[in-house]
Amino acid sequence: MDKEVTIYDIAKILEISPATVSRALNDHPAINSKTKLLIGQKASELGYRSNTFASNLRRRSTNTLGVIVPRLNSHFMSAVLAGMEEEANDSGYNLLISQSLESVKKEIANAKTMFNSRVDGLLASVAYDTDTFEHFENFIKKGVPILFFDRIIDHPACSGVVIDNELAGFDATSHLINQGCKRIMHVTGNLKRNVYSGRLKGYQNALVQNGLPLQDDLVMVTDLSQEAGKLVAQKIDEMESKPDGIFISNDICAVSCMKSLKEKGYVIPDDIAVVGFNNDPVSQVIEPNLTTVYYPGQQMGEVAIRSLVNHLKGIQHIDTSKTIVLQSELFVRSSSLKNG
Amino acid sequence: MDKEVTIYDIAKILEISPATVSRALNDHPAINSKTKLLIGQKASELGYRSNTFASNLRRRSTNTLGVIVPRLNSHFMSAVLAGMEEEANDSGYNLLISQSLESVKKEIANAKTMFNSRVDGLLASVAYDTDTFEHFENFIKKGVPILFFDRIIDHPACSGVVIDNELAGFDATSHLINQGCKRIMHVTGNLKRNVYSGRLKGYQNALVQNGLPLQDDLVMVTDLSQEAGKLVAQKIDEMESKPDGIFISNDICAVSCMKSLKEKGYVIPDDIAVVGFNNDPVSQVIEPNLTTVYYPGQQMGEVAIRSLVNHLKGIQHIDTSKTIVLQSELFVRSSSLKNG
Repeated sequence: MDKEVTIYDIAKILEISPATVSRALNDHPAINSKTKLLIGQKASELGYRSNTFASNLRRRSTNTLGVIVPRLNSHFMSAVLAGMEEEANDSGYNLLISQSLESVKKEIANAKTMFNSRVDGLLASVAYDTDTFEHFENFIKKGVPILFFDRIIDHPACSGVVIDNELAGFDATSHLINQGCKRIMHVTGNLKRNVYSGRLKGYQNALVQNGLPLQDDLVMVTDLSQEAGKLVAQKIDEMESKPDGIFISNDICAVSCMKSLKEKGYVIPDDIAVVGFNNDPVSQVIEPNLTTVYYPGQQMGEVAIRSLVNHLKGIQHIDTSKTIVLQSELFVRSSSLKNG
Repeated sequence: MDKEVTIYDIAKILEISPATVSRALNDHPAINSKTKLLIGQKASELGYRSNTFASNLRRRSTNTLGVIVPRLNSHFMSAVLAGMEEEANDSGYNLLISQSLESVKKEIANAKTMFNSRVDGLLASVAYDTDTFEHFENFIKKGVPILFFDRIIDHPACSGVVIDNELAGFDATSHLINQGCKRIMHVTGNLKRNVYSGRLKGYQNALVQNGLPLQDDLVMVTDLSQEAGKLVAQKIDEMESKPDGIFISNDICAVSCMKSLKEKGYVIPDDIAVVGFNNDPVSQVIEPNLTTVYYPGQQMGEVAIRSLVNHLKGIQHIDTSKTIVLQSELFVRSSSLKNG
């Protein structure tokens, strides 16, 4: 590789002052557009890279926001990111994304990369096993704002955007009870995460309010994968006293479970009514169509970026004492309509 | 924000030389591990950020690879990224990902962000409308290797990883012909992209080889979205002389089309046999299950990173005159088996 091209090299070649080059490259209003064009072309021709470090010291801004997500393999997450991109684009920010693959170890490496890339702000939805805030401390110390979304960490210096998971779990379970279910199973993910512990609490509240017993053997903690869906179906098939309803905290897992149950000869919803979570498009492909909780991913992404950008631009500071709660909604379809 | 913490600040506080601090932070073997630990803790405590620019000049390495993709909303792309992450992790690299949302304008902004983040290498799958290489020129000039995957640009300085799209299109269409189809429709994406033009060519070759006529009105260029699938079904419903087979270049679009056709009363495969592309999990949820082309996403991601990292580590230089071609495979299921 060649030696790094500096503004001094560009200035020398064009026979103008380094200050003019610097101003032109920073789009300073005092430099006319013809000069800017000339300098821009020469910089590009020479392969000049803006000195992120030095310009950070001056401008303290890279117009880049970092996003750390657990995985990029769900409709929900792609909806969140689509909303984020749209809002970021409108505000002149670019996103850098990385995935933790549900591992705190990788999340720590990602946070380090984002920190060294000098992002202006960080958005994060934490991994299954994250139980430390340490890897985020450096951002706080430097005044780089962090906003958590969906899977949040409660921290006095950070805000969050979520749905009311407890209410959503309560609604999903109450709906099954209203359909006549008396023995309702719940399949969830790692209970360290607010999204899963909240929905479980909602499930339990609904049972208690309706005088139904809480039974440990009816709650299964899994990784909510397709594979887990098959295992749930197999477990049901082996149970002596089978559930007549099941609330699964993720559509991908729920659809895979329905598929396996159907293959084993169970009729849905007559034998077992099923409710999922996320309103993934696959919920409308499986037959019968899956009742699910609509999760406003696109909106969550938009709101998260808007809060962060407004804070960065000084328009409105984030109130870290408040979590922004978006509304979710139960979409009732044939998979749970026993009285349909 | 505070003033940037330097190695000099750390050195002063610990009463050791800046050179020792620098070496410790770069994991130099001459510094013992106890000292490294002490310096690392102090650096973290003070919120020290490695001076990416300066250390690039020295080490010329950030151990970061940039990935630019069209969208993050498909099973295929998440499989590619999962393969990339796995391979990158094993080699000590971290990925920064950004999406072009199928727009060359955003792709240009992404390339700029990646360039300024000083990635050691770039992996890209280009947007629908990309028709310039200009935004990648700076990387080439700086000796930062670029590898294209799936949707590639032919450029003498870059390598690529693909499947044989022409062969895959040929196989898919030949299969429909073998099932007795005589009037086969093809739904594709933007023909600027090798993946779609290749599959179209394969479709045409299969028709010609079997003495079937090429008809322009049987080829539809769409954005291959769910919405496009509905429009295709509607178009078929309005056609006087209907197709008896259809090859759609994306499972999401194919499944949506099947759903709409079924709602309109068509029987699949008896009235119309359907073949998709990608082996998306939804292909095994729709009934009848969708015949599709298996696309080795995970492997594509692994191979792409391995080539790039081997090149960066000087183990094996990328041969830019060769494109790496991975094997795809037709998975025959009920949606196309007329003689089943």
